[in-house]
Amino acid sequence: MISVGVNGYGVIGKRVAYAVSMQNDMKLVGIAKLESDYKARAAARGGISLYASGDRKRFDSGPVKSKGTLEDMISQSDVIVDCTPEGVGEENMKLYKKAGVKAVWQGGEEHGLTGISFNAYANYGKALGAQFVRVVSCNTTGLIRTLYPLQKAFGIDEVSAVLVRRAADPSETKKGPINALELDSSMPSHHGHDVQTVMPDLKIETAAIKAPTTLMHLHTVDVKLNKAATRSEIMSTWKKYRRIAMFSVKDGVKSTAQVMDFAREMGRNRGDLYEIAVWEEFMVDGKHLRYFQAVHQESDVVPENVDAIRAMFNLEKDGEGSVAKTDTSLNIGI
Amino acid sequence: MISVGVNGYGVIGKRVAYAVSMQNDMKLVGIAKLESDYKARAAARGGISLYASGDRKRFDSGPVKSKGTLEDMISQSDVIVDCTPEGVGEENMKLYKKAGVKAVWQGGEEHGLTGISFNAYANYGKALGAQFVRVVSCNTTGLIRTLYPLQKAFGIDEVSAVLVRRAADPSETKKGPINALELDSSMPSHHGHDVQTVMPDLKIETAAIKAPTTLMHLHTVDVKLNKAATRSEIMSTWKKYRRIAMFSVKDGVKSTAQVMDFAREMGRNRGDLYEIAVWEEFMVDGKHLRYFQAVHQESDVVPENVDAIRAMFNLEKDGEGSVAKTDTSLNIGI
Amino acid sequence: MISVGVNGYGVIGKRVAYAVSMQNDMKLVGIAKLESDYKARAAARGGISLYASGDRKRFDSGPVKSKGTLEDMISQSDVIVDCTPEGVGEENMKLYKKAGVKAVWQGGEEHGLTGISFNAYANYGKALGAQFVRVVSCNTTGLIRTLYPLQKAFGIDEVSAVLVRRAADPSETKKGPINALELDSSMPSHHGHDVQTVMPDLKIETAAIKAPTTLMHLHTVDVKLNKAATRSEIMSTWKKYRRIAMFSVKDGVKSTAQVMDFAREMGRNRGDLYEIAVWEEFMVDGKHLRYFQAVHQESDVVPENVDAIRAMFNLEKDGEGSVAKTDTSLNIGI
Amino acid sequence: MISVGVNGYGVIGKRVAYAVSMQNDMKLVGIAKLESDYKARAAARGGISLYASGDRKRFDSGPVKSKGTLEDMISQSDVIVDCTPEGVGEENMKLYKKAGVKAVWQGGEEHGLTGISFNAYANYGKALGAQFVRVVSCNTTGLIRTLYPLQKAFGIDEVSAVLVRRAADPSETKKGPINALELDSSMPSHHGHDVQTVMPDLKIETAAIKAPTTLMHLHTVDVKLNKAATRSEIMSTWKKYRRIAMFSVKDGVKSTAQVMDFAREMGRNRGDLYEIAVWEEFMVDGKHLRYFQAVHQESDVVPENVDAIRAMFNLEKDGEGSVAKTDTSLNIGI
Repeated sequence: MISVGVNGYGVIGKRVAYAVSMQNDMKLVGIAKLESDYKARAAARGGISLYASGDRKRFDSGPVKSKGTLEDMISQSDVIVDCTPEGVGEENMKLYKKAGVKAVWQGGEEHGLTGISFNAYANYGKALGAQFVRVVSCNTTGLIRTLYPLQKAFGIDEVSAVLVRRAADPSETKKGPINALELDSSMPSHHGHDVQTVMPDLKIETAAIKAPTTLMHLHTVDVKLNKAATRSEIMSTWKKYRRIAMFSVKDGVKSTAQVMDFAREMGRNRGDLYEIAVWEEFMVDGKHLRYFQAVHQESDVVPENVDAIRAMFNLEKDGEGSVAKTDTSLNIGI
Repeated sequence: MISVGVNGYGVIGKRVAYAVSMQNDMKLVGIAKLESDYKARAAARGGISLYASGDRKRFDSGPVKSKGTLEDMISQSDVIVDCTPEGVGEENMKLYKKAGVKAVWQGGEEHGLTGISFNAYANYGKALGAQFVRVVSCNTTGLIRTLYPLQKAFGIDEVSAVLVRRAADPSETKKGPINALELDSSMPSHHGHDVQTVMPDLKIETAAIKAPTTLMHLHTVDVKLNKAATRSEIMSTWKKYRRIAMFSVKDGVKSTAQVMDFAREMGRNRGDLYEIAVWEEFMVDGKHLRYFQAVHQESDVVPENVDAIRAMFNLEKDGEGSVAKTDTSLNIGI
Repeated sequence: MISVGVNGYGVIGKRVAYAVSMQNDMKLVGIAKLESDYKARAAARGGISLYASGDRKRFDSGPVKSKGTLEDMISQSDVIVDCTPEGVGEENMKLYKKAGVKAVWQGGEEHGLTGISFNAYANYGKALGAQFVRVVSCNTTGLIRTLYPLQKAFGIDEVSAVLVRRAADPSETKKGPINALELDSSMPSHHGHDVQTVMPDLKIETAAIKAPTTLMHLHTVDVKLNKAATRSEIMSTWKKYRRIAMFSVKDGVKSTAQVMDFAREMGRNRGDLYEIAVWEEFMVDGKHLRYFQAVHQESDVVPENVDAIRAMFNLEKDGEGSVAKTDTSLNIGI
Repeated sequence: MISVGVNGYGVIGKRVAYAVSMQNDMKLVGIAKLESDYKARAAARGGISLYASGDRKRFDSGPVKSKGTLEDMISQSDVIVDCTPEGVGEENMKLYKKAGVKAVWQGGEEHGLTGISFNAYANYGKALGAQFVRVVSCNTTGLIRTLYPLQKAFGIDEVSAVLVRRAADPSETKKGPINALELDSSMPSHHGHDVQTVMPDLKIETAAIKAPTTLMHLHTVDVKLNKAATRSEIMSTWKKYRRIAMFSVKDGVKSTAQVMDFAREMGRNRGDLYEIAVWEEFMVDGKHLRYFQAVHQESDVVPENVDAIRAMFNLEKDGEGSVAKTDTSLNIGI
């Protein structure tokens, strides 16, 4: 039974805490956060232990009391999942080193921080026994989820993708734009390079645009396969992977709104979609494949965090075993 | 055990079906819908019986098969909750009359259709034993929920409210506006009059504006009380009612986004908020009270539908009994 | 011929510079801004002299060169219109005092900075000969424009208004929310009090909500008149004032989008609407009047800045004279 | 002097009418529209003759009177620019044939209607003396504008583009989505094929996504050139064409919002941007070029309509001559 602490209780942190609590080989020590706000109130109602990652007195002056400091939480944990904002996570490494605990970071941090960037399908083995692991970001995870099966089945010569990113999460109200499409200043975007931290041999280039929506990222992915494939071969390849969910315009799913509506219907925690949504309306012509996929940025990396922990503690020797456990616990697979 | 059929499986219908299935004095016969789309697929996965309300052959050519026609569902039901689009519901009345079943309509239909417009707090008794009842719309329900307690405790001389309406539900992608604020063409709007179908003696006038958001309606409500009240008297009055939930800017809840984020944290079905959200940042100065409230248009009328059924079958003689049952079953009360 | 410098070249500054350049009793010295960006490039193309308000070397390293520093611009000006961001404007006062120039500030600054808050209809005389004047903000100006005529014609006992604010200007892409309605944390909002800096005897209370749109603010205004009025009396009262423009749902103007579309059709500079848009679909019942109005936040205060300058230099002894000049020069009056 | 009538006075029609009125070899007969609404009022204020394209009596019951019927306008025109909604335009052909006038349609109609699809840069000669011509749509025009120069200078082996489309125009408030990204149901989208109606030898494939914004379309374009090019060669190639405008993130232009803000600063009619906006932040690596461009869907086809008329009446024998005239008259070229 691995004791897991979650540092940071934002969009990702709260979901990782939930997912950990659903595993039978893990135990949630608690979560650490800066402020005693409505999220703290909700966590406390759910029976989660709260630790103050900033000034404990200030925290405790709010409606919800802490059970201790961040350091207290770390001291009771075997591993910390760091879900603090970009840049802060890096600062925390010394705390974890000092306490001798393992740690998992999110994709906002640089690959260099841990030297191991993780995806359960593509490189589970790399994290076996590791001290520090980074789970790649939502967009990167989304690309790897659908590309890895293709690479394995057909080989890939080249990938070109355009990522239309949701500009803010549903609960973030400070960020815009309200009515514009915005460039990622760099062309190509960093996402292609980030995929390569997990799939180093893949030739991939990406461009990214920010759009005024909160629900999901939407990608168009252009793949030059190494050998020709038919529509049904592509379909059956993807269908082997539970973390890919096929949708169709014919069923009334024409946008990210209907994908998320379907996810809410599934009765999952928070209406999340851990799977990458892929449209059956892809085109394939010999070696040339082009498809749309949508990424639920709030939750797709959550099962990967759970798998990373399993690898780091050698709870499962191969990825398939861990993925199966995680998927069962979270009811993944539509 | 009352057998309930739900006709229409859109935003409200699917939630009513869920709520009915959670009651221990009701049984869900099934739902009727026109098309075998992704929503049908989700319902079928959830073990719900589907009936074809249009062409059954066409329905059955989709991925999910029907168990029968709308008429089949009606014949097995004691009561139908009609959740079809505005105007269609009226047409269905003859079907229900012919089959001799009771029926509940939603607020899109006119008061005159049933002669009884319903809210569990304000006029439960009116629906006792009734054949046909109309549950008032989301905005009207929202206003009644917070005004009825005030009227009861302090009396109300006059109400003036402005309703900033979400222009579309999260799953609707055809409706705009994308970047504008739009008038309800009439001033005053019909909402004030609709409140009076339930609270006939209340003097109330409303104006409505449509805004490009999907989450919730946001109201400002201006009340002239009949007798002066203090802040704490107002608070304690509202706090007696579980279907009102207090939120505060101090806790980080500054917008409808954070209200819905909190609701997702509660682990409710579909992340719904059955309660009306009222901000503690209201102002009261003697007899003059002004407050903000937000209405989750997808779900606030759902418990009222359940209570309406109980009244119609005399399952509970008074509203408090029914409300308590419904609230317990749906975990209402934050 | 008054020499006018404009400090700050954002949404308001660039429009004031244009308006000043259209007056035959004023001369635009130039504008001062921090950065040599695309707005500087556009200004230079339009033949406007640019001055560096920050580091001149850095400014001049961009594509457009400055003609001098902010101090240089001030030294050549009789009056500065300060259009810098909230708070910065206050800091600049000492520069203006030192140079012995007059100055106009915008509504982001506090009333106390100048002691004179200005609207051309309501209190032109107050600014006659003044050294420092503050033009009230877009929302406040919008309220005064339609309330002042009513007060003059009928008297006003009480006003209650709800302001649905655009959350960001069209060119601002950092600000949200993208999909939420947000409260102004205080109830009542500060706008009512701000109206009173110009109309001290008016009893007015306001509440404000932020919506995800960029085009215009939309107000509902509830007025208790001192004596009863008919629809046609109200109409003819407002129609006397060119800075009020009547629109109608019957003509296809149902939202702020169509109002701004009409403004673009007028061929005005930047598609601006200096007038306050009032819908003919108001309701009046004896002494009770309720109406919708929309405020083009980018431009409604622009003519007021011009009039303020005229008052400060005694170019026109009464407001009507100045307003007529300004309106003619900017083609105001639809 | 060619007499031009414009049938349809929506987003494109009103701009074509304006552009025609700015040519010294053309004369605007007037415009025809269905309803006497706010747009009719604005046109009448601008001195434009209005003709009723539907029931004239109904039209004349509005605030603005018509000068005649659509047929009256046609009888006085040498050519009609048809700017009616998709599908309607096709119906009108018989009217034009009967009257023996030439006609220009917009990109909403099929290529087959006229057999000639037009772009002034790419195939001006094709329209010389033609009876019926179709100007391709905004997105297609945008792609041709930047690809044609590349093809001429370097040759193009292959193009792959992703079009993120604005979901509605600024004045359209009925269309959504409000908070979602939506697929064009077909992959590839029709745009690539439409480019080939003008550049038949170009190998091009496109995919399209709808986003909740009104300002501009944003494209990422991936080009395999036939011979290697340097950054400065690409730049100087594009800079030869006035209908391409270069923008840069370094100048503060990071999104479509700032592009349109710059356009407003240019003082053009309606704040339009006839040019295609291309970001200097493109990447080029030998034969591989990838760039972002933005298309002002309301206006980019307007100069092309003018050029099409010139070709049809042999007013200019080659495209360069016509383009120069049009560009001068509309102040094109930033």
